[in-house]
Amino acid sequence: MASIRKVKGGVCAPKQFRANSVSAGIKDPASKRLDLTLLISDTPCIASGTFTKNKVQAAPVRLSKKHIKNGDVQAILANSGNANACTGEVGMKDAIDSCSIIADELGLKTSQIAVCSTGVIGLPMPMMRIEPKLKLLSKKLSPKNGLDVAKAIMTSDTRHKESALSISCGKEKFKIGICAKGAGMIDPKMATMLCFITTDANIGKKLLDKTLKDTVELSFNRITIDGDMSTNDTVIALANGTSMKKEMQEGSATHKSFKEALGRLLLEMAKSLVKDGERVTKFVTINVTGAKSSKDAQKAAEAVANSSLVKCSWNGNDPNWGRIIHAIGYSGAFIHENRISISIAGIKACEKGLQSNFAMDRLRDKVSQDEFDIDIDLGINDGEYTVYSSDLSPEYVDFNRSEYAYWKQAKKDGLT
Amino acid sequence: MASIRKVKGGVCAPKQFRANSVSAGIKDPASKRLDLTLLISDTPCIASGTFTKNKVQAAPVRLSKKHIKNGDVQAILANSGNANACTGEVGMKDAIDSCSIIADELGLKTSQIAVCSTGVIGLPMPMMRIEPKLKLLSKKLSPKNGLDVAKAIMTSDTRHKESALSISCGKEKFKIGICAKGAGMIDPKMATMLCFITTDANIGKKLLDKTLKDTVELSFNRITIDGDMSTNDTVIALANGTSMKKEMQEGSATHKSFKEALGRLLLEMAKSLVKDGERVTKFVTINVTGAKSSKDAQKAAEAVANSSLVKCSWNGNDPNWGRIIHAIGYSGAFIHENRISISIAGIKACEKGLQSNFAMDRLRDKVSQDEFDIDIDLGINDGEYTVYSSDLSPEYVDFNRSEYAYWKQAKKDGLT
Repeated sequence: MASIRKVKGGVCAPKQFRANSVSAGIKDPASKRLDLTLLISDTPCIASGTFTKNKVQAAPVRLSKKHIKNGDVQAILANSGNANACTGEVGMKDAIDSCSIIADELGLKTSQIAVCSTGVIGLPMPMMRIEPKLKLLSKKLSPKNGLDVAKAIMTSDTRHKESALSISCGKEKFKIGICAKGAGMIDPKMATMLCFITTDANIGKKLLDKTLKDTVELSFNRITIDGDMSTNDTVIALANGTSMKKEMQEGSATHKSFKEALGRLLLEMAKSLVKDGERVTKFVTINVTGAKSSKDAQKAAEAVANSSLVKCSWNGNDPNWGRIIHAIGYSGAFIHENRISISIAGIKACEKGLQSNFAMDRLRDKVSQDEFDIDIDLGINDGEYTVYSSDLSPEYVDFNRSEYAYWKQAKKDGLT
Repeated sequence: MASIRKVKGGVCAPKQFRANSVSAGIKDPASKRLDLTLLISDTPCIASGTFTKNKVQAAPVRLSKKHIKNGDVQAILANSGNANACTGEVGMKDAIDSCSIIADELGLKTSQIAVCSTGVIGLPMPMMRIEPKLKLLSKKLSPKNGLDVAKAIMTSDTRHKESALSISCGKEKFKIGICAKGAGMIDPKMATMLCFITTDANIGKKLLDKTLKDTVELSFNRITIDGDMSTNDTVIALANGTSMKKEMQEGSATHKSFKEALGRLLLEMAKSLVKDGERVTKFVTINVTGAKSSKDAQKAAEAVANSSLVKCSWNGNDPNWGRIIHAIGYSGAFIHENRISISIAGIKACEKGLQSNFAMDRLRDKVSQDEFDIDIDLGINDGEYTVYSSDLSPEYVDFNRSEYAYWKQAKKDGLT
């Protein structure tokens, strides 16, 4: 039996990882908040990544995909405030230049640096403010700076998200660190926003790729905030192997404990993203069972998770099973209306397509809480799927009405 | 050349149509607003209909589909305030009983009555208030009551929607009347909410079915308000043929003018539905051209039309082409990012995937108006599609937070 326990240090918890973050005023020159960060392993790494399935992909996504493919990425450079998306050749040049400045400073190849950006789409990067800071970044790298990586990648997040686990399995002992950012433009059809994973476990490229894909599928690919898939979603894992002499083998006890710990961390981050979604007040877990297939269960769960009207009702503490069943009806899943049962917060609200006899006041109290589950049984077969979703608030709409401030700054910067 | 002109009278404009509407207090016993209506043709009709594609279908939808299939429906009974959806055998019995009471009063068969309901899902119909009014309905039928049909089917609509055209084509002269209701739970994957069409043109069942399907495809199936497909969407057309001796033939000048007039009326209603969508402040036409196929153009147009973030930006008068291209990216349409051009309100905002050099202040003025177009050229082939959409406002979310008042009334009524 492996023992898995929480440790401090975030992405710098595993051995040989160091980081540094600075303020470059990317979004707002007057702001002092951290918005540029560098995370490195002092020793060579196996690297793996999953990226947005959006066909419009930011320059850093396209570049990092290429670098990760080689598998020897050893550092991640990331910024918030500008997504470097829809910026054409200029954007790609900015991404490459940034990697190559960092590579020079660290004595690495440009292809060993991954780069990630998050923020507004369509405006060039303010390189006049970023470039002078890039050289500074590598000067004060420290294993104590894990927390600041999580802070520097925040956009509309209100809380930074990071975690780390220490795993003991037989004679092997290793750590995994993680940080992520989310908030808006979050939908489960792909990876996520930004998430960085570090580990000192010894794992090969192929197994890391597979393990990351499997665990992302059960975490970030199961969440939705607003149904909008980003152009910049990126998960990158760096494994420097410094805690283990021998490479772990697929299916071994060590690999099982690695996968369990990674899965736990990813799910923790994914749930944190939903809970800290833009102006979100509720965290709702939608469990669909009894579907014809897991694909059908997914269709039903995602339709409910993304229905504007269902999300509005959650915001209003309204246990509205009628809107839930209407979304199941148009989801494309195979259903018989008279076999569907729906429980809300553990109380059966709909039985075989009809309203059940429940205590409305008690149910309203339950859905007034910050978190509850919706259990939907389609009553057909054994297909299952779970999605983590949020409500839709008037404040979300208000918050997302305009990005004009970005344009005004870009104008001042002579970038538009 | 046919001459087509506006006339008054709505669904009672064509010959031999009469209507009556009453207040049955379906949603709220204290309310005096019209919520129950009967529209009949004094002479036999050819009937046609299109219905929601949602697999959860209200009892009146299932019953009316069956009645319409026979083709001799001659009257429409409709109510607002309760959708009679997810109400099982009781709901079906209520729908059948209502039709048969009306049939008895009118001396028709039960199968000659179509029935439509719109309102809350999952609560039984308050038949104790509806039944006594059903007999009253047929007493005061008048050709002057067309307007009240449009009023009685309103739910969260703020305006009633009705129209009528008189068509002269060669020696033939006939009229078409229409009314519709919309407001929320509106998405283009199917028919619409409720829409009734009357005509005294002489048209066969097969041709009416085809013409209705074609014109609904270009009108109601092209609109979206909140991306939520209803359980009750219904369009019914009744043609009593009293203005023409001979049945019109497909492709004849008369049929062409009939189709043109019907298409015009349906588009007028569809656009009215979007403009009067729940707490909508903007009417936005999204034209996609240059797609690989019309199916691909549809995917791109619908993704933009339903993106929460795009709709928020419209609410904020923000000409945010970055969010538009990000939605195109995840739409599933075949694209090359660097071939996409986007014009907003006639001003080129994005050229070949990059920001163009436009006057921001002028563009912001344009998108501050109530209506504007988004023209998206994917630059691939000649596939085209148009969708009519609206913004998403904080007030929409607020409006849809709770339907608790319905439950409280149902409780009082002993129905739950």
